[in-house]
Amino acid sequence: MGLAKEILQGDVRATAKLMRDVEDGLPGITEELKILYPHTGGAHIIGITGSPGSGKSTLVDVLVDTFRSKGRTVGVVAIDPSSPFSGGAVLGDRVRMQRHAMDEGVFIRSLATRGWHGGLSRAAATVINIMDAMGKNVILVETVGVGQAEVDIMSFAHTSIVVLVPGLGDWIQTIKAGILEIADIFVINKADKEGANELAVELQAMLRLNAYPAEAWRPKILLTEAINEKGVDKLVEEIYRHREFIAASGRYDAHLKDKVKLELMEVLKGSLMDRVSQMINKDDYLQRLVDDLANRRTDPYSAASEIIEKLLRTLD
Amino acid sequence: MGLAKEILQGDVRATAKLMRDVEDGLPGITEELKILYPHTGGAHIIGITGSPGSGKSTLVDVLVDTFRSKGRTVGVVAIDPSSPFSGGAVLGDRVRMQRHAMDEGVFIRSLATRGWHGGLSRAAATVINIMDAMGKNVILVETVGVGQAEVDIMSFAHTSIVVLVPGLGDWIQTIKAGILEIADIFVINKADKEGANELAVELQAMLRLNAYPAEAWRPKILLTEAINEKGVDKLVEEIYRHREFIAASGRYDAHLKDKVKLELMEVLKGSLMDRVSQMINKDDYLQRLVDDLANRRTDPYSAASEIIEKLLRTLD
Repeated sequence: MGLAKEILQGDVRATAKLMRDVEDGLPGITEELKILYPHTGGAHIIGITGSPGSGKSTLVDVLVDTFRSKGRTVGVVAIDPSSPFSGGAVLGDRVRMQRHAMDEGVFIRSLATRGWHGGLSRAAATVINIMDAMGKNVILVETVGVGQAEVDIMSFAHTSIVVLVPGLGDWIQTIKAGILEIADIFVINKADKEGANELAVELQAMLRLNAYPAEAWRPKILLTEAINEKGVDKLVEEIYRHREFIAASGRYDAHLKDKVKLELMEVLKGSLMDRVSQMINKDDYLQRLVDDLANRRTDPYSAASEIIEKLLRTLD
Repeated sequence: MGLAKEILQGDVRATAKLMRDVEDGLPGITEELKILYPHTGGAHIIGITGSPGSGKSTLVDVLVDTFRSKGRTVGVVAIDPSSPFSGGAVLGDRVRMQRHAMDEGVFIRSLATRGWHGGLSRAAATVINIMDAMGKNVILVETVGVGQAEVDIMSFAHTSIVVLVPGLGDWIQTIKAGILEIADIFVINKADKEGANELAVELQAMLRLNAYPAEAWRPKILLTEAINEKGVDKLVEEIYRHREFIAASGRYDAHLKDKVKLELMEVLKGSLMDRVSQMINKDDYLQRLVDDLANRRTDPYSAASEIIEKLLRTLD
């Protein structure tokens, strides 16, 4: 039996194996992914972003518990390099995570920000789809949300949560960097710290200035202390409220189209570059081009044209 | 006369125009870039990365002054969305920047992290090359250095500076995120703040634990107060020391090969995706594919194969 069929039956080992194969860029994975694709679309994908130190990993941890206590199965995709889910944890955090390792209803996968065959956005899309096809009800995607790839990944989510924290002094920069536009829910975590209320008031004023269309979703600001599990139930309620809103307003379909388009472009870029890589890594061809470029005997534009023509001839 | 020839004569308006054309993806730019390419390679490219709030924009500002006072011409490429160079400045910062606007020896260009035709890394490579060809001696590239594109961009630099700041609490995460490996020089900015010396000691201990090969460059830790212009002369000395080291050790050539290879792959990816975009945006073709994907009538892998085959037929 193929991996895909085992995954559709909820097999955890087959799921982990396919993800490893995807990471390594093994041949044959596309056939498995094709089988899984029609079974995707059922999961509620939730993106959680915030700077390192905002406590968003702890928040993800408590969210996993909360969704589990409601009988939902959960996938976690950790793209934040500092997240305990991706191994970059201090000891205390890592111990917290171990609890989930014993729970069959939770599947955790971390993606390093480098080294993924075919780029981070494609990897994230694939891992989300596999978790979706294996039947996870909720998929939590944790990113640092600063770079281009990370913002792309947030756009895979139905519901986007931006985590801020008092006193880090970077929230104005975060807002300016366009995070405001992607947030469906703002969370001020570590709400027991000095400045939490001031931050909430300031952010509220900023949101009031923003000209939302009448029928648009208006993001709420919630205060949490994830480490003491405070405020997380309210957050889950708000997540459900947002899900109902996008379903009722037809935004779910618009989101789906954006998501599949982004996915298609990522797969396409990956397939094309795979074919190119195979070709140029043969017979020192790339090495010779690089030497010519370094010595300014050619330029990257002429070299790229040469490669494309060669590619087309090869594939005739 | 074409833009490229004007740029080679140092024409600022032609330079700004070509960069705008590149941003908009206008046709004909490749011919200009081909003319410029043989004139690149003279500039010393310096990458400066750090989290928002680390004061790296102020540091860049003071570095510009210092290099100018030594008679060097300077280019600045700001990729940090919170940088005053890219418009995301509080008023005080913006006033500081205006001084440079009057100086013919300084050329400043910001890149938004989104919206660049063909992706951020390609845009950065192109803008750096144009500044290099126009004859700038030093090019300062400022990034937030967290995402994949930003780390790629840092690899264009001959000398990479990582800016840390006491009390932001995120430096361990930063180090874990792999910034340690790319740093040639560490700067602890805002060195008058509490905790600066402790941070230096901790970082020094970490560097001592790192197994550098005997012939490798060993990064130094420098303390600065950019806002008071303290410590920046020492930093510039260290930058020159690093430049001499890489030239003497043959690392300059190795770096050049890495840089042109990355550049080539970016241009290649861009060219291929340009051709694809032109094709799929005709006759609602993409729209139909997206509908099929959204309704799970096809999958992204089959759709990508279909597009690639169509592409090959079109270009026959």
